Amino acid sequence: MTYSKTQPDPLSHAEFEQIFHSVCNWGRWGPDDQQGTLHYITPDHVRGAAALVRSGRTVSLALPLNTVAGPDNPRPSIHHMVKMFDLPISRGEPQFAGDFVGTEIHGDCRTHVDALCHCAYQGKLYNGKPTSIVTSTGATDMDITAYVHGIVGRGVLLDMPRLWGVKWLEPGHAVTVEELEAAEKAQGVALREGDIFLFRTGHHRRRLDLGAWNNGYEGQGQAGLHAKTILMLHERKVAAFFPDGDGETTPSNVERVAYPIHALQIAAMGMVCADSLQFEDLVPICEQERRWEFMVVAAPLRTPGATGSVFNPIAVF
Amino acid sequence: MTYSKTQPDPLSHAEFEQIFHSVCNWGRWGPDDQQGTLHYITPDHVRGAAALVRSGRTVSLALPLNTVAGPDNPRPSIHHMVKMFDLPISRGEPQFAGDFVGTEIHGDCRTHVDALCHCAYQGKLYNGKPTSIVTSTGATDMDITAYVHGIVGRGVLLDMPRLWGVKWLEPGHAVTVEELEAAEKAQGVALREGDIFLFRTGHHRRRLDLGAWNNGYEGQGQAGLHAKTILMLHERKVAAFFPDGDGETTPSNVERVAYPIHALQIAAMGMVCADSLQFEDLVPICEQERRWEFMVVAAPLRTPGATGSVFNPIAVF
Amino acid sequence: MTYSKTQPDPLSHAEFEQIFHSVCNWGRWGPDDQQGTLHYITPDHVRGAAALVRSGRTVSLALPLNTVAGPDNPRPSIHHMVKMFDLPISRGEPQFAGDFVGTEIHGDCRTHVDALCHCAYQGKLYNGKPTSIVTSTGATDMDITAYVHGIVGRGVLLDMPRLWGVKWLEPGHAVTVEELEAAEKAQGVALREGDIFLFRTGHHRRRLDLGAWNNGYEGQGQAGLHAKTILMLHERKVAAFFPDGDGETTPSNVERVAYPIHALQIAAMGMVCADSLQFEDLVPICEQERRWEFMVVAAPLRTPGATGSVFNPIAVF
Amino acid sequence: MTYSKTQPDPLSHAEFEQIFHSVCNWGRWGPDDQQGTLHYITPDHVRGAAALVRSGRTVSLALPLNTVAGPDNPRPSIHHMVKMFDLPISRGEPQFAGDFVGTEIHGDCRTHVDALCHCAYQGKLYNGKPTSIVTSTGATDMDITAYVHGIVGRGVLLDMPRLWGVKWLEPGHAVTVEELEAAEKAQGVALREGDIFLFRTGHHRRRLDLGAWNNGYEGQGQAGLHAKTILMLHERKVAAFFPDGDGETTPSNVERVAYPIHALQIAAMGMVCADSLQFEDLVPICEQERRWEFMVVAAPLRTPGATGSVFNPIAVF
Repeated sequence: MTYSKTQPDPLSHAEFEQIFHSVCNWGRWGPDDQQGTLHYITPDHVRGAAALVRSGRTVSLALPLNTVAGPDNPRPSIHHMVKMFDLPISRGEPQFAGDFVGTEIHGDCRTHVDALCHCAYQGKLYNGKPTSIVTSTGATDMDITAYVHGIVGRGVLLDMPRLWGVKWLEPGHAVTVEELEAAEKAQGVALREGDIFLFRTGHHRRRLDLGAWNNGYEGQGQAGLHAKTILMLHERKVAAFFPDGDGETTPSNVERVAYPIHALQIAAMGMVCADSLQFEDLVPICEQERRWEFMVVAAPLRTPGATGSVFNPIAVF
Repeated sequence: MTYSKTQPDPLSHAEFEQIFHSVCNWGRWGPDDQQGTLHYITPDHVRGAAALVRSGRTVSLALPLNTVAGPDNPRPSIHHMVKMFDLPISRGEPQFAGDFVGTEIHGDCRTHVDALCHCAYQGKLYNGKPTSIVTSTGATDMDITAYVHGIVGRGVLLDMPRLWGVKWLEPGHAVTVEELEAAEKAQGVALREGDIFLFRTGHHRRRLDLGAWNNGYEGQGQAGLHAKTILMLHERKVAAFFPDGDGETTPSNVERVAYPIHALQIAAMGMVCADSLQFEDLVPICEQERRWEFMVVAAPLRTPGATGSVFNPIAVF
Repeated sequence: MTYSKTQPDPLSHAEFEQIFHSVCNWGRWGPDDQQGTLHYITPDHVRGAAALVRSGRTVSLALPLNTVAGPDNPRPSIHHMVKMFDLPISRGEPQFAGDFVGTEIHGDCRTHVDALCHCAYQGKLYNGKPTSIVTSTGATDMDITAYVHGIVGRGVLLDMPRLWGVKWLEPGHAVTVEELEAAEKAQGVALREGDIFLFRTGHHRRRLDLGAWNNGYEGQGQAGLHAKTILMLHERKVAAFFPDGDGETTPSNVERVAYPIHALQIAAMGMVCADSLQFEDLVPICEQERRWEFMVVAAPLRTPGATGSVFNPIAVF
Repeated sequence: MTYSKTQPDPLSHAEFEQIFHSVCNWGRWGPDDQQGTLHYITPDHVRGAAALVRSGRTVSLALPLNTVAGPDNPRPSIHHMVKMFDLPISRGEPQFAGDFVGTEIHGDCRTHVDALCHCAYQGKLYNGKPTSIVTSTGATDMDITAYVHGIVGRGVLLDMPRLWGVKWLEPGHAVTVEELEAAEKAQGVALREGDIFLFRTGHHRRRLDLGAWNNGYEGQGQAGLHAKTILMLHERKVAAFFPDGDGETTPSNVERVAYPIHALQIAAMGMVCADSLQFEDLVPICEQERRWEFMVVAAPLRTPGATGSVFNPIAVF
């Protein structure tokens, strides 16, 4: 198939609202639900995921924590040494080195998972909760500790550039339902209930090859999902979404809505969403083992009140 | 068995040095080794660990990140909100909340894993490397990214207080080889090559019940390992050590050596060592399932140059 | 005079509201005023202050930045080295050491100055501005840069413990108008229009001698001003208030109002208010020179959007 | 005078070492001196500075604290809100907003003063002290608290671009002794013993007009002092150096020595040196009042162990 960027089919605001309504899970798991689509992963799914472990290989899906400013990282993480083997050797004791890490949770360039309190649409969070649950000292509800026992299940990678034999999708490409299904077919996998969906656009590959660029709403763009694919994820009962960018096509092709994917996934569906994973270590293993399904174990830092967490998801083959 | 605190058998400095020599793995995996005892975990062990997944339950082994100062936490972590749904609803876009987390890596009260560059003895790090590999901008060798693809294997919990039917071991109790073996027998498990050893003294239980205390070398003490148990861990080829305190008995019963366990495990053995886990969520599951072995997946944040990482290890049953 | 703690005269909520109304400067300097009582300091006052410089001595009024947690400092400042002479000497270049400082602005234990956006009463800031001028990315109005060109004028120290020959006033002591006037008389000075009022209760002296205690509203208390003294400060057109605690008597003797002094000074008057100065270096110079007036130069860090700044005010004799 | 950039006269390493030797103040004020050239400011100089206060105007010499990354600011300062009027109005109490500021001390874009422990040459700090006085927890000697009681004296601005009627000196321009003397003559002032020397190259003016550029050693350069001017500053017993860049001409015209000015001023002379001031608010006042001398009061934050401090120097006219 020759690659050409899918011309985004512009969605009117009414169409967007219609999708929002169709995928809305408010009330599905009760008025005080904390976990949203994580409910789709049952103990059976965890067992099934573990049963996929055959070669015993493990691989990280995280970017290095980035302490260098750049167009997609205006507020870099900080890393300071705080102890450097200070005790004199003559004391006869071990000596220690230690450090401090500080980081914003969200933003490109940081592999992180969002809490359900992270994103509101029309002033409402998932389940209709008000934004006032987030105070200046942290979230009092739907914080990241909802996922403290881990996001553990079957990971399925759809490697979109592979479909066309290219290194990456171009900024602005909005991946459609048809394209997702073509990738499923080409790879011989299918997204099923309770799956952790790893969505690869090649965003990070492009970044490594061409350098960082501003892929945010005001920037030069990135490839992502078309808003209609959310209907498919909803029907399939996909539990979690782990993209290499943040899932958004920028600029957005939805009228008046930047970040439509976040609005649909987090605010409407209560979906477990991560951002900014890297699959460059993963892809060669998939190709070698000729399979795009594996066990995934991902756990946020146990941070009460936080709207998300940097993390390091692990795939086990 | 009636509980009475094991009277620590004081070790002379010469005996300590003898143990250090006996368990020393310098050169075992080559002069530029980065992973130490993580080598003990083979793909077979990973497969074996996955085969333990039967009920599909998952549980966190991490403490909440602690932002409150206390006797065991003089420099608490910081958590700040940096974005609070700032866009007006009228824009028609989703609104976001975001935050910043800053934390020292080491110290009590923070569930973290140590890099091999964290601890030197007599001016030498694991494999004889000089402390100068840690510069003021981070470690240039043996940093935490050595474990980036995860610490994945069979976890075995030895629940020491259970042996005597008490809630916790008292500060100053140095657990002996005989006591570890008694716990193995009582629980029907045995530490084997490639295992991740979860060592429970009840430290965190005591903290929850009685409040925090200074358990450091200058403080009121904690239960930990007797230095001779390191010989056993070395012989058994245990891959990783995950205690609820930091493994040390304080005050130390080794002449002139505070932190003897760190010196032996990290500087001599190159062992994968974590600190300050909590097993209060884990123990009830072990008791219900009548088993103290399970799959463990733990992954540090991918932090180049860091001497360790806060993390959230997950047990999968 | 024998010292006995002034029994706080409890103020009803209606009396408090009456004082608030009496001292309210809203609109006095226009609807968009940024500087409040700093307007009282004219160029003439600056000239007059400079004319007080006779001995040429200078002295700091700041506490050391505190990186140790304590009952009055639960979230200590952080200080990390970030560079340590890393270049090899052989390069022939100078080598550098550098560091990072992070701190909350407010709170006890940190000598700081408040911006007018720091304190609201009944949902209104100074000049009736809404609290919404402070967003999650900083204040958009009445931030600390209003004082960027310095708080420069005549400083007058009223050393209250000196009045009774004691080392400090006891927690809970609410200093009255009569007591302020007695101190003025004893020292031979008077607070005048445009003055920077240094108010010493001995708070820091007590802290040095007896150790830190929780002097906040929920804590064991501190000496401060009686709410009625604000009428005097208003009439005298005092420009700035620099106390050794935070000016509050705790527990408050105003019905249902913790922090009445902040409400009156900042929200009603638009007064330049600092917190947590130390006068232990200053007092001996005052005693030697037999004078309690001097030039003061104090400048916040130029921090756009900030609600205040740590600072180091200097007295010049 | 038509402006043309002074062609830097390259200095051999031997010539540089000769200057270092000529201006070296080691031992001048005793082996444990903390203050270096601050000793040149006597009480008489402070009195003289205060006597310059005639119009009563005050003006900041600081840049805004910069939280935006750029070519000359790769690790920007951070500013977070930590409290936002959280108490409900119904409580009847004042409500507060508060924030957190974190910043590296040194680097371009931050107005700061260096401690004497900040810069070593050939492994030696001022007074021959070893670099080991700076530990991973801070400096144990010659830290910034040496200046805690303020840098107070006569400020003299030499406005170099004014000499040629240009807006700024071009990067790479090394200002010579002859050019400094020409500026003195043109402005009718002279640098004298105990003065605070404000050196304006127009660096910040250029930055405002053309945008930020990397002016560091590896970057596109900046105007600064020629190394031979340090002999003049030494002879004149100038106490402090407050430039709008960092005083260095980059690239350096000294063989094998980047940052020669820092080496000479700090390591050899023990000079009070600041970096990155701005004089855009100051210059119009100087022009109006037709004078380039005034009182300066500058005070570092009282930060034990720090190698410097961000600060906000104030000029009083």
